[in-house]
Amino acid sequence: MQPTMTEGRLSAIDDGTVREVLDAVRTDGRSSLSAPEAKRVCDAYGIEVPQEGLATSADEAVSLAGEIGYPVVLKIVSPDILHKTEAKGVLVGLDSEEAVSSGYDPIVENAAAPTADASITGVQVQRMLPEGMEVLIGAIADPTFGPVVTFGLGGILVEVLRDVTFRLAPTSPEDAMAMVDGIRTAEVLHGVRGRPGVDRQALADMIQRVSELVTDFPEITEVDLNPVLAQEDGAIAVDARLVVDFEAEAETRPPRYGKDEILETMNRLMRPRAIAVIGASDQDGKIGNSVMKNLVNGGFEGEIYPVNPKASEILGKKVYADVADLPDGVDVAVFCIPAKFVVDTIAKVGDKGIATAILIPSGFAETGEVELQQQLVTTAREHGVRFVGPNIYGVYYTPGKMSAAFTTPYDVQGPVALASQSGGIGMGILGFSRSTKLGVSAIVGLGNKADIDEDDLLTFFEDDENTNCIALHMEDLKDGRSFVEVAQRVSRKKPIVVLKAGATPSGSKAAASHTAALAGDDKVYDDILRQAGVVRASGLNEMLQFARCLPILPTPTGENIVIITGAGGSGVLLSDACYNTGLHLMDIPDDLNEAFMKFIPPFGAAGNPVDITGGEPPETYRNTVALGLEDDRIHALVLGYWHTIVTPPLVFAKVMSEVVEEYRQRGIEKPVVASLAGDVEVEEASQYLFEHGIPAFPYTTETPVEVLAAKYRWARMAGLLNGK
Amino acid sequence: MQPTMTEGRLSAIDDGTVREVLDAVRTDGRSSLSAPEAKRVCDAYGIEVPQEGLATSADEAVSLAGEIGYPVVLKIVSPDILHKTEAKGVLVGLDSEEAVSSGYDPIVENAAAPTADASITGVQVQRMLPEGMEVLIGAIADPTFGPVVTFGLGGILVEVLRDVTFRLAPTSPEDAMAMVDGIRTAEVLHGVRGRPGVDRQALADMIQRVSELVTDFPEITEVDLNPVLAQEDGAIAVDARLVVDFEAEAETRPPRYGKDEILETMNRLMRPRAIAVIGASDQDGKIGNSVMKNLVNGGFEGEIYPVNPKASEILGKKVYADVADLPDGVDVAVFCIPAKFVVDTIAKVGDKGIATAILIPSGFAETGEVELQQQLVTTAREHGVRFVGPNIYGVYYTPGKMSAAFTTPYDVQGPVALASQSGGIGMGILGFSRSTKLGVSAIVGLGNKADIDEDDLLTFFEDDENTNCIALHMEDLKDGRSFVEVAQRVSRKKPIVVLKAGATPSGSKAAASHTAALAGDDKVYDDILRQAGVVRASGLNEMLQFARCLPILPTPTGENIVIITGAGGSGVLLSDACYNTGLHLMDIPDDLNEAFMKFIPPFGAAGNPVDITGGEPPETYRNTVALGLEDDRIHALVLGYWHTIVTPPLVFAKVMSEVVEEYRQRGIEKPVVASLAGDVEVEEASQYLFEHGIPAFPYTTETPVEVLAAKYRWARMAGLLNGK
Repeated sequence: MQPTMTEGRLSAIDDGTVREVLDAVRTDGRSSLSAPEAKRVCDAYGIEVPQEGLATSADEAVSLAGEIGYPVVLKIVSPDILHKTEAKGVLVGLDSEEAVSSGYDPIVENAAAPTADASITGVQVQRMLPEGMEVLIGAIADPTFGPVVTFGLGGILVEVLRDVTFRLAPTSPEDAMAMVDGIRTAEVLHGVRGRPGVDRQALADMIQRVSELVTDFPEITEVDLNPVLAQEDGAIAVDARLVVDFEAEAETRPPRYGKDEILETMNRLMRPRAIAVIGASDQDGKIGNSVMKNLVNGGFEGEIYPVNPKASEILGKKVYADVADLPDGVDVAVFCIPAKFVVDTIAKVGDKGIATAILIPSGFAETGEVELQQQLVTTAREHGVRFVGPNIYGVYYTPGKMSAAFTTPYDVQGPVALASQSGGIGMGILGFSRSTKLGVSAIVGLGNKADIDEDDLLTFFEDDENTNCIALHMEDLKDGRSFVEVAQRVSRKKPIVVLKAGATPSGSKAAASHTAALAGDDKVYDDILRQAGVVRASGLNEMLQFARCLPILPTPTGENIVIITGAGGSGVLLSDACYNTGLHLMDIPDDLNEAFMKFIPPFGAAGNPVDITGGEPPETYRNTVALGLEDDRIHALVLGYWHTIVTPPLVFAKVMSEVVEEYRQRGIEKPVVASLAGDVEVEEASQYLFEHGIPAFPYTTETPVEVLAAKYRWARMAGLLNGK
Repeated sequence: MQPTMTEGRLSAIDDGTVREVLDAVRTDGRSSLSAPEAKRVCDAYGIEVPQEGLATSADEAVSLAGEIGYPVVLKIVSPDILHKTEAKGVLVGLDSEEAVSSGYDPIVENAAAPTADASITGVQVQRMLPEGMEVLIGAIADPTFGPVVTFGLGGILVEVLRDVTFRLAPTSPEDAMAMVDGIRTAEVLHGVRGRPGVDRQALADMIQRVSELVTDFPEITEVDLNPVLAQEDGAIAVDARLVVDFEAEAETRPPRYGKDEILETMNRLMRPRAIAVIGASDQDGKIGNSVMKNLVNGGFEGEIYPVNPKASEILGKKVYADVADLPDGVDVAVFCIPAKFVVDTIAKVGDKGIATAILIPSGFAETGEVELQQQLVTTAREHGVRFVGPNIYGVYYTPGKMSAAFTTPYDVQGPVALASQSGGIGMGILGFSRSTKLGVSAIVGLGNKADIDEDDLLTFFEDDENTNCIALHMEDLKDGRSFVEVAQRVSRKKPIVVLKAGATPSGSKAAASHTAALAGDDKVYDDILRQAGVVRASGLNEMLQFARCLPILPTPTGENIVIITGAGGSGVLLSDACYNTGLHLMDIPDDLNEAFMKFIPPFGAAGNPVDITGGEPPETYRNTVALGLEDDRIHALVLGYWHTIVTPPLVFAKVMSEVVEEYRQRGIEKPVVASLAGDVEVEEASQYLFEHGIPAFPYTTETPVEVLAAKYRWARMAGLLNGK
C-alpha cells in the first residue's frame, strides 16, 4: 500500500498500527522502540526501510538471509542498546551462509559485554544496501515550538558540520523541498563533478511523512532516521530510532485569544481614554513620580488619575485614595507599588472594570518568586484584567503622547514599534532613538511576559496605521508555535525585526540522538524565525539600525543592485559587503555601461561598481544616480561618497536627496543607501540623508549594505520581490 | 629509502629523479605529468602512493593485477585526460582475472570517445585501497604569496564545503600539524562517536613533503593529491595530479631592502629636517595650497620650502623657482604637480640629494598609465629616491606635527599608525579619528604602492616609540611573502590590524578595475595573514574600532573572562557576543561566586554573567569590578551598564575609571570593556571611559566584546597569553 498525497496531507497512512506499537511500548514501560517496532511504524507511514527480519538464533539468521538475499548486515536488537555500532553490535557485508552463521554469536556476546544486564531481543538481519549519499531526517519535540522536523547531512560529519535545517511539523511539500535545498551542502544532493544527483523528491517526501507522524503522535518525542541513504532513485532509512514520552503532560500552553479580543485589549492599552497611576507619588526619585511626570509633561491626551491613600494632589491632578474611588472610563492602570501588593490590587482593578494594566514592579519570577507570579496570572485572569509585565519600564505610544513609563519620556513620532524583554535593552532603545532622531510609534517593555506577549503586540501593530515596522528583543517565547502563526501573517505586511538573545548553545549535554543533539542549537530558532518571515538581527546595534532604516527604505522590486562610488576603495569594500550579505551586484549590460560612461571621466571604471572617480563635481553624482533610478533594470543603489572640496558632504547630501525626491514625485521609488567616507562633516550629511529617506552612514561600508540586505531578506520572505 | 627529517627539513629526498621527470615533461612540451610520472615524483619525495603499474593491453593488466594482488582498480592514462572519472576512465573493485581482462577495452574506448585525438598511454592497474577518511593535500603557485600548500577535507564535499586551509611553503612540522588541526572538520580526524582517529602525523608529514617539493621545484605550479586516504596508521595519496609551467618567468619581485636601509629611508620620510613642496600654490582649492596650509598651520617643526617658478612667497615662506635652487638638508619632496611632470622632477629631486618623496598626483597605473608608472619607478631608483604613492592624499606623522597631505590637517597625537591604499578610506580614517578623538602617530596614504609599501611602514613602526598599534587597509600586496616575513616579526611586539578589501569574488572584480590588483582566493589571504600574526578586521568600521581600542587595552594573561552586568538582558547578549567571538566565559568557582554574592542582592544571579541587578548604587559596580580585578584567576572583564537614577551614566564612568586606575597603580592591569545601555548621556560616559582606558560603547553589546576578542586574537598569535 503506497501512500499518496491529497492537498498536501499524506493519505493512506496506517495510524492504527502505530497506535498498536505505541500501546505495547507504553505497557512495557519503555521509552524507545525496538528496531522491528520502528520498522512497523515507518512502514505504516510509508517511510522506506530495508527488508529485514528478526532472528533469535544463528540458524534463523541464515534462513532469513536466504529470503532477503545476500549480502546482508547483522545488527543487535536490545532495548538497552541505543548505539549499536559503539556496542560492536553490527556486522556488515556478510555474503554467505557461513559468514552469517559465524557472525551471529559474537555480535550477541559483544552487545552483552558492556551492560551485563542488557536484555537481548535478537539479531536483525538486513539486506545490505547499495551506496548512496548519507543524510539525516528526524524530528524532536521542541520545548518552545512543539514538533519540529529536521533534515541534514548525515554520516560521520553530521555532528561536526551541524549542517541541518529545521521546520515546524507538519510541513507542506514545498517546505519539505525547501529544507532539502536549504542546507549548506545542498549542492552535493544535486550532483557534483559528474556524479548524479539524488532523488530530492523522495527525501522531501520522507521529511513530510516524519512530520505527519510526530504531529499525529505527539508522544513520539524523537525520530532519528540516520543514515538515510539518498539514491539516484528513491531514499531509504537505514536506521530508525524512535523515542517516546507518555508521561509528558499535554503541555499547558498559555490561553490563546481571538484576534478581535486581542485588538479590543490592545486598543485599550495603547489608546486609553484614561490612565490610573497606582502608587503615584510627588516625591522625586520614586517610580510613581517619574510615571506621573512622564504622562503629564509628555502631554498625554487622555485623563490621568493618580491613586495614593496619602496624597491629595500630584502635579496638579486630583489624587484618589483607592482604586474603588476612581471614575469610570479608565482603560489602563499603571502599577508603581511593591510586588507584594500587586495581586490584591489587580483584583480591585478588575472589579473596577479597568481592562488592562502596566505592571512596572519587579520581584516576581525574575527574582525567584514564581508562585507570586502564578497568583498574579490567575487573579488577573479571574478578574478580567490583561496586563504587560511584570518587571518592566513601561509602555510608550507616541501617537497618543503616552509615556506610561518610569524611564525618560519620548516624543519623536514615527513608524517603528519596538519592544524589549529586558529593561536595559529598553533604555538602550530609548537612548539610540533619541540620539538618531528615530521616529517611533511605540516602545513596550515586556519583562516577564506573564500575560501580554509578542503575539498581542504583533496583532495590534499589524493594523496600526502609525506603525510600519516592528522590532522585538526577545530571550524566549512562551508559545513559539503561536508566535510563528502570527508573525507569518504580519510579516507579509510589515517587516518584523527580531533580536533573539541567548543564542549560545546550552553546553554539550549528552543527548540521546543526533537529532536531539543538533536541536540544542540556536539553529532551531534561526530556521523557524525565518520560516515565520522574520528578519533576524545579529546584535543590539543591528536591530536598532534595521528598525531605523527598514521603514524608510522603499521595497525593492528585483535583485539588481548597482554601486555608484566616488572612491574606488569604498567601491571594493561595498562590493565585499554586498557579497557577504547575499546581495546581487547587477551584471551591467553594454548599453547601460555606455550610458554611465557618458557621465564619468574616461579613466573611471565601467562595470559594477560604477567608479565615477574622486574629485568629480556634484553633477556627476547626480547624473549617474538619476540614471540608476531611471533605468528599470536596476532595482537598488548603493552610494559611496568621498569627501572632496569639489563636492563637500552636505552638497552631496542635498543633491542626492533632491534627485531621489524628484524621482519619487514621478512615482519611481527604489531603495538607496549611502556610505560616506570623509571628515566629520559627513556625520551631519549622513543625518540629513537619513531624514530625506536615504539611510546613510559615516566611516563604514558595512552598515548601509547590511540594512539594504535586511530589506531584501524581508521582501524575499514576504514574496514581494518580483511581485510588481 | 625512507626519508627522514633533520631540523625540520626533510632529508634523503631524491630531487635528481624529479629533475629527470620534469625534463622529460618539458621536452614533450606538456603541462602536466602522467600518473606514472606523478608516482615517480611522489616516491622521490616520500609521498606514499598505491602500488601500481602501467598496462598497455588486457593481458598485461591481468598479469600486473596478479603481482599487485586483488581487488584492483583500473584507470586510464592519457596526457589529454585530467578528470578520469568524468571520462569514464575508471573501474573499481575488480576482484578477478576475468574482471580485469574484460574491463580493459571499454575503459580505453570510453576515454577516447569525448576527445577523438586523445592519445592513450595505457591503463594504470592499482591495488584497491581499504576504507579511510578522504582528505586533500595540494599546493599552488599563488600570484601573491608564491608556493602555498593546502590541506582540507576531500571527497565529493571538498568543493561544496571548501573546508581547506593554506600556508606558505615550505612549512615547518608544527605548521603542517596546525593545518591538519585547523580545518573546520578537524574533529572528524580525531575520531568521532567511537570511530578511531586517523594518523594525523602521517598527514602532517605528507603536507610537509609536498611543501618541500614545490619549494624545490617552483615550476610545479599545482599539486593535487585528492583523495588522500587517511587511515588509522598511515596515509596514502590515491591520486596525484601535478601541473607544471616552465614558461612562467622567474617573477620579478620588487627589490628587497635591508632593515637598516628601510629605517634610514623611513626616518627621513617621517622625521624630515626640511620638506620641499613641489607645485606649492597660494591659490585656494589647489592641492599645492592645501599641502602648504596643512604643513604651516599644522605647526610642522622643520623647514618648509615651497617650489614654484611663478611665485615668490607662499604663506610667508620663501618660494624656490626650481628644485635645483633648494637649500641642502631637504629630506622629503611633496609632489603637487600633474602626473606628466613627475618623472622628470623626481630625477631632479634625486640629483639634489633629496632621498624621499610623497607623490600625491594621480594619473598613473590607476588610470591605465602603467607605462608612465614604470618610468617613474625606474627613474626614481636610478636617481636614488624612494617614494610613497603615487595617487595618495599624503603622509601625517603627528609627533613631528607633519601633515604632508592635501586633506584636512590632523594633530591628535596617540599610539596608532594607520595606512590606507585608497584615498576615500583615508578620509574615512581622518573623520573617524577626529570624531572619536582617536590618538594617532601616523596616517599614510599608500595609493598605487609603486615603491614604499606596508613592509617599509611596518619596519619603521616596529621601532617607533610613538606607535604601539598598526592598522592597514589594503587591496593587494606587492610581495606577500615579504609582508608575512616582516609582519610575523612585528606582530610579536605590536598588534597589526588589517582590513583586506576585495575579499570576495565581486570585491576582487572591483579591485581589478581599480588598482590592477591581482585577485586571489580570500581564504589564502585569510590563512596566511593569520600565519603572519595579523588581526584581520571584517570591515572598515571594525578596523577603525580595533585601531582605536587595541592600544589602550592591556594584554590579557589568560582566557578567563567575567561579565559583570546591571542589566540581565545585556548580560545574555554579552554572553552571546563572547561565544560568537571565541572568548571563554570563566566557569566561576564556588568561593569566587560567594565572594561576588556578598556585594549583590540575594536575587542577583551568581555564575557568569555576574548579574548585580538593576537599581544598584555605584558601590555595587565598584565592589564587584574591584573583586574582578583583584582575583588573579580572572583575566578580563566585560561590563554591562544599565542607566538608572541611582547610578547615572557619568557616575558609573567615573567610578569605573577610578577603580581601574587604582588597580593599575598597584600594578594590576587587565582588559576591561563596557557596553552602556541607556539614554543619550551614555554617549558622553562612553567617551569618558574610553579616555580613561576602558573601551566603552553605547547602544551595542557586540562592539565592546569584538574589540576585546581582537586583543585576545593578537595576544594568542603573539604567544603572550599564558606567557606571564
